[in-house]
Amino acid sequence: MIIVLKNNTTPEQIEAFSKKLERDYEVTVSVSYGQDSIVVGVMGDTAGIDIGTVQAQSVVRSITRVQEPYKKVNRKFHPDDSVIEIGEGCRVGGGGFTLIAGPCAVENEEQIAGIAACVKRSGACILRGGAFKPRTSPYAFQGYGAEGLELLRHARARTGLPIVSEIMAPSQLPLFEDVDIIQVGARNMQNFELLKCLGKVDRPILLKRGLASSIEEFLMSAEYIAASGNDQVILCERGIRTFETMTRNTLDISAIPIIKKVSHLPIVVDPSHAAGIPWLIEPLSMAAIAAGADGLMIEVHNDPANAMCDGAQSITPEHFDAIARRVREVAPIFGKTFA
Amino acid sequence: MIIVLKNNTTPEQIEAFSKKLERDYEVTVSVSYGQDSIVVGVMGDTAGIDIGTVQAQSVVRSITRVQEPYKKVNRKFHPDDSVIEIGEGCRVGGGGFTLIAGPCAVENEEQIAGIAACVKRSGACILRGGAFKPRTSPYAFQGYGAEGLELLRHARARTGLPIVSEIMAPSQLPLFEDVDIIQVGARNMQNFELLKCLGKVDRPILLKRGLASSIEEFLMSAEYIAASGNDQVILCERGIRTFETMTRNTLDISAIPIIKKVSHLPIVVDPSHAAGIPWLIEPLSMAAIAAGADGLMIEVHNDPANAMCDGAQSITPEHFDAIARRVREVAPIFGKTFA
Amino acid sequence: MIIVLKNNTTPEQIEAFSKKLERDYEVTVSVSYGQDSIVVGVMGDTAGIDIGTVQAQSVVRSITRVQEPYKKVNRKFHPDDSVIEIGEGCRVGGGGFTLIAGPCAVENEEQIAGIAACVKRSGACILRGGAFKPRTSPYAFQGYGAEGLELLRHARARTGLPIVSEIMAPSQLPLFEDVDIIQVGARNMQNFELLKCLGKVDRPILLKRGLASSIEEFLMSAEYIAASGNDQVILCERGIRTFETMTRNTLDISAIPIIKKVSHLPIVVDPSHAAGIPWLIEPLSMAAIAAGADGLMIEVHNDPANAMCDGAQSITPEHFDAIARRVREVAPIFGKTFA
Amino acid sequence: MIIVLKNNTTPEQIEAFSKKLERDYEVTVSVSYGQDSIVVGVMGDTAGIDIGTVQAQSVVRSITRVQEPYKKVNRKFHPDDSVIEIGEGCRVGGGGFTLIAGPCAVENEEQIAGIAACVKRSGACILRGGAFKPRTSPYAFQGYGAEGLELLRHARARTGLPIVSEIMAPSQLPLFEDVDIIQVGARNMQNFELLKCLGKVDRPILLKRGLASSIEEFLMSAEYIAASGNDQVILCERGIRTFETMTRNTLDISAIPIIKKVSHLPIVVDPSHAAGIPWLIEPLSMAAIAAGADGLMIEVHNDPANAMCDGAQSITPEHFDAIARRVREVAPIFGKTFA
Repeated sequence: MIIVLKNNTTPEQIEAFSKKLERDYEVTVSVSYGQDSIVVGVMGDTAGIDIGTVQAQSVVRSITRVQEPYKKVNRKFHPDDSVIEIGEGCRVGGGGFTLIAGPCAVENEEQIAGIAACVKRSGACILRGGAFKPRTSPYAFQGYGAEGLELLRHARARTGLPIVSEIMAPSQLPLFEDVDIIQVGARNMQNFELLKCLGKVDRPILLKRGLASSIEEFLMSAEYIAASGNDQVILCERGIRTFETMTRNTLDISAIPIIKKVSHLPIVVDPSHAAGIPWLIEPLSMAAIAAGADGLMIEVHNDPANAMCDGAQSITPEHFDAIARRVREVAPIFGKTFA
Repeated sequence: MIIVLKNNTTPEQIEAFSKKLERDYEVTVSVSYGQDSIVVGVMGDTAGIDIGTVQAQSVVRSITRVQEPYKKVNRKFHPDDSVIEIGEGCRVGGGGFTLIAGPCAVENEEQIAGIAACVKRSGACILRGGAFKPRTSPYAFQGYGAEGLELLRHARARTGLPIVSEIMAPSQLPLFEDVDIIQVGARNMQNFELLKCLGKVDRPILLKRGLASSIEEFLMSAEYIAASGNDQVILCERGIRTFETMTRNTLDISAIPIIKKVSHLPIVVDPSHAAGIPWLIEPLSMAAIAAGADGLMIEVHNDPANAMCDGAQSITPEHFDAIARRVREVAPIFGKTFA
Repeated sequence: MIIVLKNNTTPEQIEAFSKKLERDYEVTVSVSYGQDSIVVGVMGDTAGIDIGTVQAQSVVRSITRVQEPYKKVNRKFHPDDSVIEIGEGCRVGGGGFTLIAGPCAVENEEQIAGIAACVKRSGACILRGGAFKPRTSPYAFQGYGAEGLELLRHARARTGLPIVSEIMAPSQLPLFEDVDIIQVGARNMQNFELLKCLGKVDRPILLKRGLASSIEEFLMSAEYIAASGNDQVILCERGIRTFETMTRNTLDISAIPIIKKVSHLPIVVDPSHAAGIPWLIEPLSMAAIAAGADGLMIEVHNDPANAMCDGAQSITPEHFDAIARRVREVAPIFGKTFA
Repeated sequence: MIIVLKNNTTPEQIEAFSKKLERDYEVTVSVSYGQDSIVVGVMGDTAGIDIGTVQAQSVVRSITRVQEPYKKVNRKFHPDDSVIEIGEGCRVGGGGFTLIAGPCAVENEEQIAGIAACVKRSGACILRGGAFKPRTSPYAFQGYGAEGLELLRHARARTGLPIVSEIMAPSQLPLFEDVDIIQVGARNMQNFELLKCLGKVDRPILLKRGLASSIEEFLMSAEYIAASGNDQVILCERGIRTFETMTRNTLDISAIPIIKKVSHLPIVVDPSHAAGIPWLIEPLSMAAIAAGADGLMIEVHNDPANAMCDGAQSITPEHFDAIARRVREVAPIFGKTFA
């Protein structure tokens, strides 16, 4: 961290400022006197420094952070890709390409089992399905909860596919006991109490980027989980909120190569939520692979017109199969193995 | 709700579509045939209709919602302003102007008691103080938790000021037993499980707008609390995320008159978080009053340079006193009583 | 400008880098060696330094600009408010509060003369009217051009009100020969060729902020005009583009106090374009005054339902009169004189 | 266009409203009476209807446009891809993949000739080079103007590559007499006077998307050029402005498949401006191809560290060659021919 002090700062103020930094945080401070500037270099673990409080010091002109605020998810301290193992034979990251598919909401046994069988045939190796649904309206269908998870387990038993489902509160954790991957939705990306709880779980967490979260904030939320003890985090880019209205959200394709560079965690893309339009899912999926994503999470419904939620962005199993075929052709061109 | 169907829709499809709507939701449907368009009008309680699923019907061209999706917080069904009573003699809304003030984080007994006494003298009638702090970094100071709340209670006992503090998870609810107003932070605005829990509490909730939440989503989150049984909701505009970097957030001043028009709930403004710069707090406070806000929530710290969090946006008690004097002059011009 | 170099930079590289900076720009460079950092301070006129090119040097880690890139519009070098004189007896800035009003587009003699008389009676001292209209669609009404300006001049002759109208290209300049204030629209805020031309004109320029322009970019566009020789610039905040859809744009109320602090130029607010809804114009006008604006520019039409453009955001002369009365009451509270 | 009227609208008002629409625009109107709604369908050429004025009618509740406001650039009326011919043997669109490359600014004969030779060898078939540079600061290098264009012509003569360069004002048009493609920069996307002038030119126009322009506005600007007589328009997506700061802009990858679907015009991607970081250019280029782009425009400089502008986002000829090799491998997978 480089702190530039105001030119008229007195030696006593510099001394007091430096001492305070060393006392409040575990850092070492060195002062350089330029002809026109007084620059304070701060070394050591600067991640805990409260920028806001440093800025509040009357002697400070500007602060430049030269170290990322995340540590455990930082590639600098973990150069190799993290590979997340999901049950036997399924892994996310590390050169493989993973298809996650399933309905927005689990509706009944027939629906979820049918979809599961279809997407497995097409090449998906993880089944998604919502049991607890975060809906903007309290009057909208909220998901079948525990019962929905039970139906997911049945579908897993039948197909062998590991399952991923969204958790909305720490109190639901017992219900997720044997859910293979626990998903944190975009709206809960900065629900820090939930993140801390999930840091104590020994299963992988799929963390979705918040609608208005910067890439750095996204990584800091992953850091919360890792700092609490769980380093099995799969990131998921699903579009950010912008002024454009022709898509539901704006897929931030640049986030993929950036995250691959600065972090060792795998990242998958959810084109269904990013686009909100079925025919856009294929081109966005292709772009995601080309940009370096480790996988895709796609909403598939056997009967979108009768889906209990988000039918408008779901694709049919046949459409999904066509996309999966393209994935099979394209993934190797971008260095990914798709079994 | 007005649904325009595609021109080539057959009479059988129209019939099936109408029947489905009437069957799935408690609504009545009427079809109008124009020369060039088939328009389906949907009457009744359309709040529960899943737009996404309707859009997924192959016959649908476009959907226009003509009814707001919120009911309990809608001024249409509750024309008078809601007035939220906070203990004896303190109320938010209904023509009074309310000052809420206090530190970002409760740090120790002396600090909170000192600030409480100061802001009370200046005219604040509610004391704010953070005990659980939602921080972007897991390594940043997270607040003193239960102990912080205890210190807040002491300050209340000494000054008589009711207290408001932020809750971060349903499990913390027992600790908030006698906290006068429970605050939901911007990052938890769509933590629906938390909102549902707070809907069962019999105390006022101060709900902050999310960084990337539309006004409608903001009101829908208030609706969650109200629909769960608690209609004592105070809204708080605190700035939205935009491309501008000279302010921490962009205060959406238009949200105030819009919310006053469409909802009966009181709305206060937090200029401290919106601006992130101390000298901006006064002009933004004045603008908030002029735009029709029911109150202000301002961060005050006796020693911003040594604050444990967000010192850079805190003002001193003296600065707060100067702003309070201006509020006293200005509020009556805009039809508000400030005792 | 403070440039932090990479730690492994060799003395030869530092020397070469410093020499290059001194050679390419008129600056002096001083190097400070901290224990953990090499910091290069750059003094002198850094406004011409191309940040992109400095960043491209392999030895550079980060750059912090400590000097604003604007000079002529910077309050640092011109501490007093600029006051722009518009004909006799009308001035913008310097403690007065200015109402500018008139129709979106000049339509015919009766219309513009009628509106001019009305808004003058209410207290407006400048008449606005569009002759060249920048429309998103090539098929929409594009304004009456030269003829529209002629009608504006007639209205000026009758009422004595100075006139302001929008220019869209340098080639139109001869037509604006005796237009009192030349307006640059939001879409042309970075039409630099137009700005340079207007820098050679000896009349005031009203410069609107671009929809996605930062405050700094806004000031840099004013700097273009000033650097070309014309320092009579009136800034106009008219809302920025965000994700919120309930207003046409989001009025950035914070921009007003910020610009008043960093620049000496006057700033007016256009609530009509910011809101896009007639009933919002009054509260936004009040907020603008409270935040420190020097004036308001409001669209007034005698018959909004038959306006040739933007009728939806225009108010009637009666409505404008009611707002002007409020301005008369409120402006003095915020230190402004409204004659 | 579907207009929903307020329920209490009288038959006389409906009649007057319908008549007015038919009188003001060349449209036919039909009214449908539902049980709960009065719906007015508007047929014919609705592109010229001023939505703002219709909204200003007191009887109107909501307006839904069911027809795109663009006509000439609409794929509906021109189902086949437009192919833009650039000199002999070079074309944009229609199944080929086009590489455009060159420096941000033309600096001297050696530089531009050297880069031209390199990028040609790598597979570029169009040479870009800035002569007039739109810079945020009036103090930054503004390009060599006419002399820069002359140097570009020399490079064309030597290499045979057609050239593209940015125009900033209609008055510069004579200087662009034999420039093969005239570029309109992002900041001038809604400089409508410039667009109208370029509509009268018989050469292709490369139109860049504005930083805060919606896809619809982007197409409407292309429509301006086409409506004025020039249908040879190449669109260029170059990133939009969002809250994310790790990239210079956010590449809107979804814009590519959307534009390919709704318009027949070719679209290329400029990853250099979108990213602002050299190492991001390759993954973004790959994503662009995968999403269906017709080409790429990339900034290449022989010595980025000494570039006169935007060195930080330029890549070297060697780096460009590596990307071109990848393009050659990848383009055919996505149905594009790259010679």
